[in-house]
Order: sequence, then structure tokens, then C-alpha cells
Amino acid sequence: MFGPMFSTPDATARTSDGAWLQAMLDFESALAAAQAEAGIVPVSAAEAIAAHCRAELFDTASIGERAVSSATPVIALVRDLTALVGEDARAHVHRGATSQDVVDTAAMLVVRDVLELVVTDLRAAAQECARLAEEHRGTVLIARSLLQQALPTTFGLRCAGWLTALDESIEGLTRFSPAVQFGGAAGTLASLGTGGPEVLAGVAERLGLAEPVLPWHTDRTRIAELAGALGTASGVLGKIALDVELHAQTEVGELTEGAPGGSSAMPHKQNPATSVLITAATQRVPGLVATLLAAMPQAYERAAGAWQSEWEPLTELLRLTAAAARRTRELLEGLRVHPDRMAANLDLTRGLVLAENAAGRLMTALGRTEAQDLVTELCRRTVERGSTLRDELLAEPRVREVLSEQDVLDATSASDYLGAAGGFIDRALATHTGLEKR
Amino acid sequence: MFGPMFSTPDATARTSDGAWLQAMLDFESALAAAQAEAGIVPVSAAEAIAAHCRAELFDTASIGERAVSSATPVIALVRDLTALVGEDARAHVHRGATSQDVVDTAAMLVVRDVLELVVTDLRAAAQECARLAEEHRGTVLIARSLLQQALPTTFGLRCAGWLTALDESIEGLTRFSPAVQFGGAAGTLASLGTGGPEVLAGVAERLGLAEPVLPWHTDRTRIAELAGALGTASGVLGKIALDVELHAQTEVGELTEGAPGGSSAMPHKQNPATSVLITAATQRVPGLVATLLAAMPQAYERAAGAWQSEWEPLTELLRLTAAAARRTRELLEGLRVHPDRMAANLDLTRGLVLAENAAGRLMTALGRTEAQDLVTELCRRTVERGSTLRDELLAEPRVREVLSEQDVLDATSASDYLGAAGGFIDRALATHTGLEKR
Amino acid sequence: MFGPMFSTPDATARTSDGAWLQAMLDFESALAAAQAEAGIVPVSAAEAIAAHCRAELFDTASIGERAVSSATPVIALVRDLTALVGEDARAHVHRGATSQDVVDTAAMLVVRDVLELVVTDLRAAAQECARLAEEHRGTVLIARSLLQQALPTTFGLRCAGWLTALDESIEGLTRFSPAVQFGGAAGTLASLGTGGPEVLAGVAERLGLAEPVLPWHTDRTRIAELAGALGTASGVLGKIALDVELHAQTEVGELTEGAPGGSSAMPHKQNPATSVLITAATQRVPGLVATLLAAMPQAYERAAGAWQSEWEPLTELLRLTAAAARRTRELLEGLRVHPDRMAANLDLTRGLVLAENAAGRLMTALGRTEAQDLVTELCRRTVERGSTLRDELLAEPRVREVLSEQDVLDATSASDYLGAAGGFIDRALATHTGLEKR
Amino acid sequence: MFGPMFSTPDATARTSDGAWLQAMLDFESALAAAQAEAGIVPVSAAEAIAAHCRAELFDTASIGERAVSSATPVIALVRDLTALVGEDARAHVHRGATSQDVVDTAAMLVVRDVLELVVTDLRAAAQECARLAEEHRGTVLIARSLLQQALPTTFGLRCAGWLTALDESIEGLTRFSPAVQFGGAAGTLASLGTGGPEVLAGVAERLGLAEPVLPWHTDRTRIAELAGALGTASGVLGKIALDVELHAQTEVGELTEGAPGGSSAMPHKQNPATSVLITAATQRVPGLVATLLAAMPQAYERAAGAWQSEWEPLTELLRLTAAAARRTRELLEGLRVHPDRMAANLDLTRGLVLAENAAGRLMTALGRTEAQDLVTELCRRTVERGSTLRDELLAEPRVREVLSEQDVLDATSASDYLGAAGGFIDRALATHTGLEKR
Repeated sequence: MFGPMFSTPDATARTSDGAWLQAMLDFESALAAAQAEAGIVPVSAAEAIAAHCRAELFDTASIGERAVSSATPVIALVRDLTALVGEDARAHVHRGATSQDVVDTAAMLVVRDVLELVVTDLRAAAQECARLAEEHRGTVLIARSLLQQALPTTFGLRCAGWLTALDESIEGLTRFSPAVQFGGAAGTLASLGTGGPEVLAGVAERLGLAEPVLPWHTDRTRIAELAGALGTASGVLGKIALDVELHAQTEVGELTEGAPGGSSAMPHKQNPATSVLITAATQRVPGLVATLLAAMPQAYERAAGAWQSEWEPLTELLRLTAAAARRTRELLEGLRVHPDRMAANLDLTRGLVLAENAAGRLMTALGRTEAQDLVTELCRRTVERGSTLRDELLAEPRVREVLSEQDVLDATSASDYLGAAGGFIDRALATHTGLEKR
Repeated sequence: MFGPMFSTPDATARTSDGAWLQAMLDFESALAAAQAEAGIVPVSAAEAIAAHCRAELFDTASIGERAVSSATPVIALVRDLTALVGEDARAHVHRGATSQDVVDTAAMLVVRDVLELVVTDLRAAAQECARLAEEHRGTVLIARSLLQQALPTTFGLRCAGWLTALDESIEGLTRFSPAVQFGGAAGTLASLGTGGPEVLAGVAERLGLAEPVLPWHTDRTRIAELAGALGTASGVLGKIALDVELHAQTEVGELTEGAPGGSSAMPHKQNPATSVLITAATQRVPGLVATLLAAMPQAYERAAGAWQSEWEPLTELLRLTAAAARRTRELLEGLRVHPDRMAANLDLTRGLVLAENAAGRLMTALGRTEAQDLVTELCRRTVERGSTLRDELLAEPRVREVLSEQDVLDATSASDYLGAAGGFIDRALATHTGLEKR
Repeated sequence: MFGPMFSTPDATARTSDGAWLQAMLDFESALAAAQAEAGIVPVSAAEAIAAHCRAELFDTASIGERAVSSATPVIALVRDLTALVGEDARAHVHRGATSQDVVDTAAMLVVRDVLELVVTDLRAAAQECARLAEEHRGTVLIARSLLQQALPTTFGLRCAGWLTALDESIEGLTRFSPAVQFGGAAGTLASLGTGGPEVLAGVAERLGLAEPVLPWHTDRTRIAELAGALGTASGVLGKIALDVELHAQTEVGELTEGAPGGSSAMPHKQNPATSVLITAATQRVPGLVATLLAAMPQAYERAAGAWQSEWEPLTELLRLTAAAARRTRELLEGLRVHPDRMAANLDLTRGLVLAENAAGRLMTALGRTEAQDLVTELCRRTVERGSTLRDELLAEPRVREVLSEQDVLDATSASDYLGAAGGFIDRALATHTGLEKR
Repeated sequence: MFGPMFSTPDATARTSDGAWLQAMLDFESALAAAQAEAGIVPVSAAEAIAAHCRAELFDTASIGERAVSSATPVIALVRDLTALVGEDARAHVHRGATSQDVVDTAAMLVVRDVLELVVTDLRAAAQECARLAEEHRGTVLIARSLLQQALPTTFGLRCAGWLTALDESIEGLTRFSPAVQFGGAAGTLASLGTGGPEVLAGVAERLGLAEPVLPWHTDRTRIAELAGALGTASGVLGKIALDVELHAQTEVGELTEGAPGGSSAMPHKQNPATSVLITAATQRVPGLVATLLAAMPQAYERAAGAWQSEWEPLTELLRLTAAAARRTRELLEGLRVHPDRMAANLDLTRGLVLAENAAGRLMTALGRTEAQDLVTELCRRTVERGSTLRDELLAEPRVREVLSEQDVLDATSASDYLGAAGGFIDRALATHTGLEKR
């Protein structure tokens, strides 16, 4: 019942029992084919095996139950596959392979299929950020630090920040290269004599996976790197969702989700339900990454528990990241931006957020200390009188000696105190375009 | 396909979508009943609601899908329930309640039902430890520190250690008191006027849950304490499984699982498959506990993501602990103990593990320093000559001046160097018996 | 340089190298004294040992460096202590003890000393919450869910929620009972013959620690339970800090810290620096708790790494919780509450937050559906016209047929829609008072 | 006192308060110099600032204490620096910068300096693995899965596995590119007008750091990627240490550390103290990585707590990884390999570990099923009779019909059943050599 909130239909499909099972069968099929090519098994046997490596011929529930006694689903799977293929092929099922070869290779296939979804959604989300950054290149927004209003920025620059972070996290994910696992019980492929490496290469080629330097049964760097890259992407998505939740607060009102959740009893509510689900998903990711990293020390040639602890967390990590990526894409596609509320919030402090600028403009004439002291005094007055910093600057003779009315208007105009915001946006867009072209 | 390895059939049933849904409906039913008693809703409406609060009348998949848009399954659930009850009852469904009231109370019901399984299995496991501790009160075993042989102990004392740890972890779990959640959208039960607390008490009573001091929407101490108690129990189970895996090593051979996993290609293998699954399950627990603790800071009256992040991890934590508890119970019930191998391993160092004892016996006569130096010298000789420490002691005149042959035999007898092992076992058993009687 | 932000001076002192060292020496001293009482070592030797068990006589840096080669600081410590005591006492230093006895017992002493600080500060923080709950029993505040305004509550109820959570977390911490560790290398106290348990009891008594059922070298339930209790308390503190940060937002402005951090360049900033440090500290806690839980499976009689991994995380966990507790106490003591801003924010939606109440009042006369539809319509008008819900209710004939003007005024008065808020506060205060009296 | 066990002297030095402070000052110095070049501050002022940016002129303890009130050490640091430089330079200290610019850039400098140590040690450790892989290309070892003896492999292949994992983890670390942080309070560099990017580039160049696309205040991908890479490397080191601990067990005895920890009371102990410290360090890493990942969602332009939570965990993560890398290097340099014990352990099952090979050799003549059944029967006899599989094969007529005596000898010779072990070692060495040449 909670599942759909923490996955997407296609991520669920690609990580389902059926998907895992098919991936395991794809390994068995590719193994037999590669061994046929190497002359180790008859071509007819490989064909018979391939013909039966279809998930719908198997009962995943039964395999799952039988997995308990051996701590691996592979024994039951191989037994069922062996029973399905004809008499002649029987001896050639799963030849030279060990359980972990099947599960690890299947994991890599599942990972590849889900990463395709994740990267597609992250790229689309990045594209939305690029669009928003361009559209809101001049939309002034108050920057906030420690949740306090600070200085002006633009909503475009915020979106450029999201864009750059997404682009960086996409890089990490696309760098990941899933590799086949095939080493047999001891990692030596001993039962294949000297033919092991040839078969290894053949399996890799057939499955479209990389060929590793060595069987990697207890070298879990692949899993760890993947976990790190998914964790990084997830964190970026969590940041975007957090920003949207904060901007969407009733008291802030600068952003609204495209289809906020509502409540009949509370008609004013515009619940940022999509952001909430992104946050909920991404908050679960660090614990899963830690679990996968903690599983890295795996004893000897096969771990007694650590390896087995990876299976479900890896699956969940894929689902959660896929869900967060899809939802962020949708969130950004539908995001409603309220420049009027951004402008109104900029004025909440009646100009105090521009005190730095005012002081800067006075410094040349008055020196740093005197300029700062004077502005501090004027800020105090602004607060006491409920006036605006602009009014106080205009009313203060020491200011008017050195700044014209226009100078004061400029000094207290947020849109004139944006520094490199525009240039930074351009850099982020240019970098993004460069990445897209690759 | 991996699921059965990381749960048990009954834990799966009690944490299934159907179980969660029924628990949610139990809340709605109890709420209407309590409100009927308080005169807030008509008795007939409450009865109509109760009659339809049966999970089999609902489509969990559909509720799950509709949950995505509002980040909660409750809106869809209430809509479906409202549609089911007759016209007259419609206005009385879910009165005064908020989504979180339903999900949190349901969580407590699910927790209670799974804890019952967990505690039953932990108690049975503890009982097995007590049996083993008694049976092996005199079975001498080499204690090992940093995986190196140290001094003699007994297998009974090891089992007493498991027993005490299990008893302590059971205490933590039985202390947990699941409480009803009912506060309405703001935690004030405002829509019930002043009648809220009476209804709260009524719901608690009907569901057999504790009545909390306050609605606890953003006070997650309950969840945190539960997580801590499950994490503690899980760690104890992981320790037992680790010990069994180590004792079952081919080179150690002191324990074998009752039904070890095997391999036709490797007939000598006695895979500790049950221990492996316990290890795999318990290794995933700390990450889940961390996720639940990290979710504690929940904003204002309802969190935007942190609360929602609890649902699946809590479910998994329950399943994993239930699985580990059940498997540990089975592991201990079937455990095959090999005193002969324990005895053989004790002799592997040819008596060196008793050097401390020998030195202790020589100290009175020779003084500490001389006694230790002498024993160190004899240990060196034992290693060089491939003899035994006993032979070297018997052959050394300085020893024989102060120790008789019988003294030397005693000093090098592991079963005579067990200190308080027996007494400690008795303490553990007595404490256990005391706990069982409560 | 970062240290003071994540600890307090007294927590730092009680967890310093010197404090750990003194705690180790306290064990050695108590051990000798207990053995003297048991007639195992001469009284004069025990006195000589006690006289030298003073941290200032030792060089912690040197002990630390020498610890590397044996993975324990105890060997160097015992060597230095043995060198310090006179010739006659030398043979009686550390008798029957193993490294882990010293470090684990020292850990319990350090824990006890820091918990005293933590609990004192948590109690003081709870007391502040009780004060605030009473003071603001009638201070109306908008409750917020998913960061959206929901329905009215009171600031007093919020504080009561903090209070209850603090009280619950204090319960967890005070339940913790630190116990002595003494078992010798194998947990049998073999070198003391049958006198071990008597000495164990004597050491416990002298140190004011509980006597455990068994030596608990590889039973880490104590550490896990402590970690869970600290993690729970930390999460409660994190929730309070998060609330303050949110309430202190420039746009919300309902709370200000007593001594907010500032910025000369940004004079309007009222940085919630104390809350920020609480948040920063508590965010680090779940990872540390996970590390301690993950260390529970400890092999045989002494772990090869897992035990040693506890030392620094436990120390940090104590410091971080102590810092968060102290800062929360200070935060609450100095907290400035702005009822005017709370009232202003209540009006931000121009009455929409009371739509539920208005509908409720219309329901008796109009029926649920018609009442809700009507209010929904009036809410729509309120938004379109920029009016208030009250005005729209007053202007609507269908409303005025069934509600008087006073009825409408009441229905749209937040302070009249607080349900059980006051009663709940009283419950929390009464429970708190009950706990304080124990 | 625990510190030296979880760091190295040079990692401690490079992450000390002094090192952090100097890194912060390096930022301030580079900032002034870059601004001088850009014509924003006088060259003389930049020189005066540079002259005082030396850590020894500052009191880190005092800065640390003053950091508490603002939740950042930078305000105190800038105040002290401003006081030190002459009157004329005063206005030019820290111009346009915000606290986070200083701390983040300093973090990158600290990271760079520690990564240099880590990578150097990892490379040296990899080199040792390469040496061992070559030396032990033919040293037969029993492979173990789930801690049970499986099939033969070589110790060289195990070392090749360590090598490949190390090489992969080094790749991840060397890919990390530390970048300068400079954006001012809002990330716009507004106080520098349009000159911000030029200064940003100048600071990056002076510090030898990369220039980022944007200021990355709340884009924490860098920290996350670093954490992931350190976590991966740490996991590899933990795997090596675990293997050594297991091989060094008294009952296994295949490896001994170069300088094992000992015990006078237990002269036979060869404590794998170095491995234990590596294990203890690396077990703490996943929790720290999770903490850093959990800190990624940082609000708006500066986080209220999440950012601040990174500082100490990042420092610890660096120390722990540096310690583990250094210790692994030392462990491998001193590792004592015992081929005799490896050979003896291979014979523990009296040939059963070669049953797969025997069955394989019989299959051609007998068919798969009959061959396996026959071997299973012979294995049973081996166990019952306490004989060897070789003897049973030689004694069995059905075997001798199809296999000569030499065939049986070959079939039961572990060194003849190593498959691609040698070839795989060569692949690992060739890949390693390729990486070293880059």
C-alpha cells in the first residue's frame, strides 16, 4: 500500500521478482551460449537452455521459499531450469557457475535497467532546471541563510544551482559500468579447465556488460561505487524538494507544486505532496548506502551474510532513487513560480537586506568604518520607526552629502545588487549544454 | 524472491498490505464506536462503519496508487470506506481524525502483532540457550579473543552469555507500550469540541493500546525506542549467528547447524545457511534504525517527509527482526555440538593456553617474576620441540622442586582452570528462571 | 576549533583522555581493593596501587602511541602503573583482569558521569517547556502540517508536546544502569580460582556500578540500549531546534532566540545559531548509533575490531548529546515568543484556516454535504475577492438563516476552536510533575 | 588516548585544528591577493594580509570557544585577522566573502592534503599485493565460501583480488577534484559588482584548486562523492583485514602479521592487532558516510545545521581512512605467509574438496548423473572410513575402468585444479601496471 509512493511503476517492474528472475535466467542463457561457442557444451543444449530461460515458466514464490534452506535462490532456480530443459541439455545447465555468479550478474542487469530510468529522469529534471534558470534569470528572490533572509539573488540562480548539482550527479551515475560476474565456486573457473576466461568474455558480450579484470565475488567496489553515486543523486533531489517545501510554506508562498495535495476540511492547504514524497524517499537512502558499504568486508571467496545482506537494500535503493528522480522531474515540470510573492518577501525587512550594498556605496566617500557605523544606525532607525532603509538614507544629511537621490534609489534596489548572478547562470547553462552534447 | 529469506510467513502476513489496511480500518471502526459511546455519532452509524471495516472489501493496490498524489493512503481509504457504508453513516466516517491518526495507530497495531512473534521466538531461543548452558556446563571449550585461542572456558558459559543477552533484549522489547494516536489535524481534537479526550480514551480501550498523555504526531520517541529495542535484539541475534558461523568453520568444526546447506559439487560443505541468513538480516538493521532516528525531528504539527519516511523502514525492521528471531530459535533447537572437536582444538597449542595457570601455580613458591620467566622459557621450548607444555613442566627440575607430578597434571588440565564458569552459568540460569516467572 | 560547538566544557572534561584514563585507574584501584578484602592481595599492595591510580601521574599521549601495537591502551597503562607502585605491589597490579575489563568498566564510569550532565540539562529543558506551556496556554498559534498552515492550536500545546517528548526520553536514559565489567581473558575469572564472583561484587560496590549477571565482553546490549536512549533523546532535541528554526524564519517571526547570531553586513539577521548547533549535533547521532549497533556481533569471547570500533563513537555520542541537551536548555531559557506575530500569521489566510469549524457549525442545520459545499464555495469567494471568510459567511443568506452574527463571529474565532488544547496541556504538566516527584 | 589507534601522525597533523586554521587563512590570503590582482584591493593591503595569515599567530582554542555563539569559527577568525593586519589593510580583509566560503575552501585544502597520504598508502598497499600475487602465484590455498572450505585456489589469486579492489578504489579517489568555494552571502558575489568571477578564478588558481561552475554552498555533490570514494576505499581495506584475521586464526594459521600483538600470560597468542585496528576504523566509516549523505539537503542558500554537521565527520572520515590505508600497507609489507599451513588445511577434508574435479573427470565416460552419484558415494565412504577420496577412487573398480592411477592422482591434486587462477593473476598485474604508468 505504501509501495507506489516510494517507487514508480516502471522502477517497480524492473526490480520485481520477475525482473530479477529473468536477469538470472539471462545469465544462464548467456552462459550456455558462450560455452557453446567455446565448444564446451553442444549448441543444441545451449539452444534448449535459452528456450527455457523465460521467467514466466518459473514460480518465483516457490523459488523464494526454497531459497531459505540454502540462503540462495539459485539452487532452486537451477533445479527448476534443469527440470525444464530436455534430457540432453540437463548436464549443461549452469556449468562452471556458482550461485553468486548468477545473482551478481543479475544484479548488474537490474541495475543497468533501472539506471536507464534514473538517468533519463535526472536529465529531464536538469532540463527543467535549465528552462527555469533561463526564464527566471531576472526574477529577484531573497537569498536565505540559516532560514533567515540574507541578500538578494535570483530564482534563476537557484535553479542554476539545482541544475549544476543534477549534472554532477548524472556524471557519477553514467560513469558506472556494470560488469558480469563469473568465477565459479573458487573464482578460478577450475571446472572449465583453461577455457574460463573465454567463456567469461562471451557471457559479458552477450549480456552487454563489461568484462571485469577478475571475478569480483568479494571485491564489492562496484556495489559501493554505485551506492555512492545513487546516494549523491538522491541527496541532490532531496535538496530540491526541501527548497520547494520551504518556498511553498503558507508564509512564504513563492512556489506552489503543479498539483498540490489538498484537504476538504482545510481548503487553503496546498500540500507539497510531491516534494514530501521526494523527501521521504531520499531520507531513507543514506541508511541503505551505509548498509551496502558496511557489507563490503566479505570473507575469503564468499561472505557468510554480508553479501546476502545486499540484495534487498540494493533493490530498495534503486526504487527510491528512481522514484525521487521521476517525482523531481514532475515537480519541476509543473512548478508554479510566484514572482509577486518573491518581490513582496524581498520587502519584508523594508530594505534592511540591502544594508550591505548601501554601506558599500558609502565606503568610498566615508571610509569603511564610518560607512558601516552610519548604515547600522540607519538600520536601527528603520526598525524603530517602521520606515524603510531607503527613506532613512534619503533623510540622512551625511548620506545625501555623498549620494544623490538616484544613488540612494539604486543602492536600495535589489535588482541592482545581484553581482554575478546572471553570469553564473550562463556558466551553468553552458556547462549543461556541453554535457548534453556528449 | 528474496523476501522469504528475510522474513517469516507469519511476520510477512502481519506486516502485509492487508494487515496494514486492516489495522487502519480497526482504527476507523474503534473511532466510530468510541464516538457512539460518547454520543457524538449515532450507534447505528458506528455499527455500519464497523461492518465495513474489513480489509477484504478494499483494493489495496488501488489505494496505494491513489496515495501518491496526496502522500498518504488515508484519503483514498476514507473515500472508499465512506462509499461503502450506507448513506446515514457517511457523515460519521473518520470524524475528527487526521491521516496521521490512522497510520500511526495502525503502525502501533502492526508493531504489537509482530512483537508478539518476535518475543515468542526470542523466549524460545533463550530457552534453548538455557538448555544448552545446562547440558554443556562441563563441556570445555577454548575461549578466543581477537580470533586467537586464549584460555579455556566452557561451551555452557558461552550459551549462558547468549542467554543473558537474549533475556536483556527481551526486557527492552516487552517494555515497549504501543499507544493510540488521535489528535486531529492540529493535535487539539478541535472538531470534537471538548469531547476529544473521552473519545481518545475510548479508542485506546477498544484497540487495547495505551492512551498517550498527548497526541504524539511529531513526538517520535515511541518509534525511536522501538527501533532501539529491535536494534538491540537484532544485534544479539547477529552475535549468536556469528559465533555459530565461526565455530562451524571447516577448520574449527565445533558446531554444525541442524540442517546445513549443501552442494552436490562440494559434498563436504556444511554451509551454516541459517546463520548466514540471520547475519544478513541483522546487518541491515542498524541502517534502518538510523533512518528512523534521523526521522525524529519532525516539523511543527506534521512533518513534510520525515514521518512518511518511517513507514517502509519500520515494516522492514519488524520483518528482519522477526526473521532473525525465528531463525535463531531454529538454529539453537537444531544445533549440533561437537565436544570432541572442542577438546581437540583445546590441544592445538599443546598446552600453551594453560601457561597462565602453570605460572600461577609456580608463583607462590618462586615469586611472580621468576615464575613467569620460567613458564615463558618452557613455552618457547614447547614450540621449538613440538612437545607439550605438560612434558616440559614435568621435565624441568625447577618446576619439579615445587610441584608434584599430580600438580603439573592439574595445572595443565583445562577442566581444572575454569574459575567461576559454572557459577556464572548458574547465575544466568537463575536470572532467566526469574524472568520467565514474571 | 570545531570541538566547542559540538560539546560543552564539562562534557569535554568528562570524556577527555584524562577522564578516560582516570576511569581506567579507578578500575585498577577498585580491583586491588576488592582483592585485598577477599584476601587475594595484601592490603598494603592495594593501598600502594590506589595511591598511584591518579591520572596526573601518567602520560596519556605516550599511552596512546603505545596502544597502536596491541590495539589497546591497557597494556601500556598497566606497564606504567606497575612501574610506579613499589616493588611489593608490582605482582598485584591488574590481577586476573583483561584489557577489556578495564576499558569497558571505564566506559561505564565515563557514561555515568556524562549522563548525569545530560539528564540534568534535559530536566531543566523540560522544566522550561513546562513553564512555557503554562505561560502560553492561551497563546493561539496556527498549527502547520507539511509546512502548510492547518488549524489553530496554542503555543502552549506545542511546548507541552516538547515537554512530553523530553520526559519520555529522560525515562529512557535514567533507566540505564551502568555495570562493571570483570571476567578476565576468558570471562571465567579462572586465575582467581573460585574467588572471582566475590571480587566482581567488590569492584562493583566500590565503583558504584551495578554487578552484572555475567561478564559481558561480547554481550553488548548495554552499549546498544545506551545508544538507543541517547539517540532518542537527541532526536527530541533535534525536533525542538527544528521547530525554533522554522518559527524564527524572517517570514514567520514567531520565535527568536535569546541571543541570536548576527552579521554586521546583514543587520536584520537573527540567526538561530543555538538551534543550528543543536541540529548539527543531533544530525550526527543516528550514524553513531548505527555504528554502535553494527558493532554488536562480537566474535567468541572478544571481538577482532567491532569492540574497538565503539570507543570513539561512544565518546562522541556522549559529547553530542550533552551539547544538544545543554544548548536546548539555554535555547528554551532565553526563547523570545512573539504572540503578535503568531496572531498575525493566523490571519494570513483571512480565515480559511477556520473553514472546518464553520462547516461544522453549519452541519447540524444543513447536513454534512451541503454544509461542506457551501463553505467550500465561500472559501473560493474569499480567495477571489481578497475578503475574509467571516465577511463571506456574514454576507451569505443561507448561512445567516441558521447562524446569528455572534455564531459567525464565534465560528471564525481561532481561540474558540482549540478543542482539548488546554486539557492536553494540563495532562502533560501533571505527568511531568508526577515524574519530577519520583 | 584512543586517537593514535584511529589515525596516523601525519593524518592527525593534516586534520588538526592548526591545519584547518591554516587552510582558512590560506583562503583569506589568496582572496586578498586575487582581489589585488583584480584591482579591488591595494597590493599593499593584500601583502599585509598575506603576511599575517599564519596559523601560529592565532589562538585556535579561543576561536573555537567564540564560534559557539555564531555557529561558525569564521567570525572570530576574521576579527582576529583584522586586528592583526595594519590599519590600512583592515578594510580589505575577507572582502566579499561569507563564512562558508572560508570553511568550505579550507575543507577542500584539508581534503587534498589528506588524500595525498591516503592515495600514497593505497598505492603502496597495492604494490605489496602485486608482489604477493606474483610470489604466491603457485601457492595453493583452499578457497572458502560461507567460511566453509570449497575448492582450491591460490593465495596469489586472493592477493590479486585485493590488488584489483585497491586499484579500483584508488581510481575513485584520484578522480575527486577539490574546488574552491567563493560566492559571498547569497552566492552572487554582489559586493564585488561584476568582478566576482575574476576573483573566483584567481583564488582557485592561487590555491591550486579547481574553479567550480557555480558557488556550491548548498550543492554538496562534492562532499558526497568524496564520502562515497572514501567509503569504498575503506571497505576494501576492511575486506583485506578481515581476510587476514580469519587466516591468522589459531586453527587456520595460514597468515601471521609481521608484528602481532602478544600477551605475557598467553604466550601462544599472535594477535592480529594491525588488522583489528583496520577493522575497527573501517567499521566506523559507513555511519560517517551516511551522516554526510544525510546532510546533503541543505536549505536555500545556506543550511541551518546540515552544513555544520559535516565538519567533524568529514575530518574523522579522513583520519580513519588514512589510518586504515597506512595500516594496511604496513600489514601487507610485514605479512608472513605460511604455505605449509595452507597445504595442511587443504588436506583437512582428505580430498573431498576435489570431489567436483573427480566427478568432472568421470563424466565423459560415465555421464553426468552416474559420475556424480558415484563420487557422492565415494565421498560418503571417505567420511565413514576416515580414508581419503584418492584412496577410495583408487579402490573403486568403476573408477579404475575409466581412469588410470595417474588420472586419479591428477584428479585429486589441488594444484592441478586451479583453472584460470594464474591467468587471472596476470590480468590483475597487467591492469595494475597499466594504472601505475598513467
